[in-house]
Amino acid sequence: MGPHPAVAAIRLAVRRVLHDVLTMPPDSSRKSPAQDGRPPLVLCACSGGADSMALASALAFEAPRLGLRAGGVTVDHGLQPGSDLRAAEVASRLRALGLDPVEAVQVDVGRDGGPEAAARDARYAALDAVAERHGATAVLLGHTRDDQAETVLLGLARGSGIRSLSGMAITSGTGGRYRRPFLGLDRQTARKACMVQALPVWDDPHNADPAYTRSRVRHEALPVLEKALGKGVVEALARTAQLSRDDADALDSWAAAVEPSVRDDAGDLEVAKLYALPVAVRRRVLRRAAIAAGSPAGSLFARHLEEVDRLITGWRGQGAINLPGRVAVRRQGGRLVLRQG
Amino acid sequence: MGPHPAVAAIRLAVRRVLHDVLTMPPDSSRKSPAQDGRPPLVLCACSGGADSMALASALAFEAPRLGLRAGGVTVDHGLQPGSDLRAAEVASRLRALGLDPVEAVQVDVGRDGGPEAAARDARYAALDAVAERHGATAVLLGHTRDDQAETVLLGLARGSGIRSLSGMAITSGTGGRYRRPFLGLDRQTARKACMVQALPVWDDPHNADPAYTRSRVRHEALPVLEKALGKGVVEALARTAQLSRDDADALDSWAAAVEPSVRDDAGDLEVAKLYALPVAVRRRVLRRAAIAAGSPAGSLFARHLEEVDRLITGWRGQGAINLPGRVAVRRQGGRLVLRQG
Repeated sequence: MGPHPAVAAIRLAVRRVLHDVLTMPPDSSRKSPAQDGRPPLVLCACSGGADSMALASALAFEAPRLGLRAGGVTVDHGLQPGSDLRAAEVASRLRALGLDPVEAVQVDVGRDGGPEAAARDARYAALDAVAERHGATAVLLGHTRDDQAETVLLGLARGSGIRSLSGMAITSGTGGRYRRPFLGLDRQTARKACMVQALPVWDDPHNADPAYTRSRVRHEALPVLEKALGKGVVEALARTAQLSRDDADALDSWAAAVEPSVRDDAGDLEVAKLYALPVAVRRRVLRRAAIAAGSPAGSLFARHLEEVDRLITGWRGQGAINLPGRVAVRRQGGRLVLRQG
Repeated sequence: MGPHPAVAAIRLAVRRVLHDVLTMPPDSSRKSPAQDGRPPLVLCACSGGADSMALASALAFEAPRLGLRAGGVTVDHGLQPGSDLRAAEVASRLRALGLDPVEAVQVDVGRDGGPEAAARDARYAALDAVAERHGATAVLLGHTRDDQAETVLLGLARGSGIRSLSGMAITSGTGGRYRRPFLGLDRQTARKACMVQALPVWDDPHNADPAYTRSRVRHEALPVLEKALGKGVVEALARTAQLSRDDADALDSWAAAVEPSVRDDAGDLEVAKLYALPVAVRRRVLRRAAIAAGSPAGSLFARHLEEVDRLITGWRGQGAINLPGRVAVRRQGGRLVLRQG
């Protein structure tokens, strides 16, 4: 008799990603990890919650069968009393699964971009550091299809276009270090896999705290959306993420390819050539030009680019448009001139 | 003293569209409407609800100032007892606003595609017929930004990509006949404009009937999304619609431009050339090819195209893929061959 279907599902998902990691073409942008002649190491990040405990158990099972070492990292964000004890307990659970090395890392969460973004930044910095230190080939993350659906809704609320609808990538980070094997799997399967394997799991109280936007999306918005639109909403949101990501990638590549051809010898943008582009491509070229001129990508919104676009499509002698990062855009003699002041 | 801000807002929105209609370049795809030497006629479609009564009032005010005639159409879907009396009453309200001609048209709602789609199809067919009969230059529709947000959520639930996120167009129909002046205006402004002008409005009970998906989106999903994600959700969804539409248009034009170059002399698709395209463009080329081979656009889903795509990116000797409309796709000697059986 084989394993329970939920356990089979999480193992298959991890096995596929490990296969992919093993057959990965060497990436010149990244130093080959120092392995000292030992088998390659794959880490998993684990909060102790059901998704990442399921991930850890599947990694512990599959990695040795493929000749890989498996390790685990848990991050203590220091945001709750006793979080250090919690992290130590998660680390011992990971060791009990047979993972080695296992680390509990403490981080200082800053305040940039709000509590959720600050915690995420601190977490990835810590994971990067551990991966570097151990020369890990990959770091697996336990995000599920449900997390993906929540991310798409959060992106939708920004209203900043299809890139923000594209959710989390299956592969991300420098040299494709981060992998998300469960992105096509639902949270229920991960929970079930923990249950049937009698794995203790810990429900982070933050996940149910309505002070956090993601928690409200999870516990209030998505259930009502399912009720209004039908059970397939989570799947539809996850599919939207993938399609939007592919579309955004294609349009970005178009903009990158066309950008040099709309610049004159001085590097300024020729209005007539911009005008001839589809608006979706033109906005992306303008975005690239603004960033190249010194505007920070994170502060550059759709409304900024719309205003710049009106220098091209709605010209009536406007003055300079000021973009974040003290970048001014002027129309001068058939050219858009971007200068940082 | 000028009009109430809400009335000023609806009039401005209609005035802009009428200007646009007046300066519209002649469209060769469309016969010049027979006007018998009279001023051009602009119609509005009116259900008697607040949005379209506000529209009718603004059209009645603005059209004569621009030398245009203004008329109105109300459609009786025959779905409720007494709907004929209701339609006659709406028609008399439109006449009272000074619109001429005014018509109440009865339609037979079929069953194709569900009750909402069938009612919509019947409605547009009737509006087309009235517009043709009177030689109208344009037909204004009262859809607001809130309707747009609902449409985006309904598209999101389909999970079929960014075209279904792009909502309703400002201009649509043969020769750009249909115009939506209120797409950037919120429903509250339209209601307010009716109130301050003492216009009687009729709330269609269908709009509050939870049997209809749109009604559940309006009354259940959107309020909860606003609570979870903040007040800007409707605006963010409307912005997403516009950005998605521009992106989808650009990618469609890319696919249309590249399609001939991936076909060989026999008209079959060359796998190597398809493989070299970005996945977003390749899927669209495959979609165009499937439709050209006889697959009905409305039955062709993302999952069909994914399966065809695997003939290119995951080739392991698969058999023919069957698409709707009895179209079979086979990989034969470096070509994809599409044939209707």
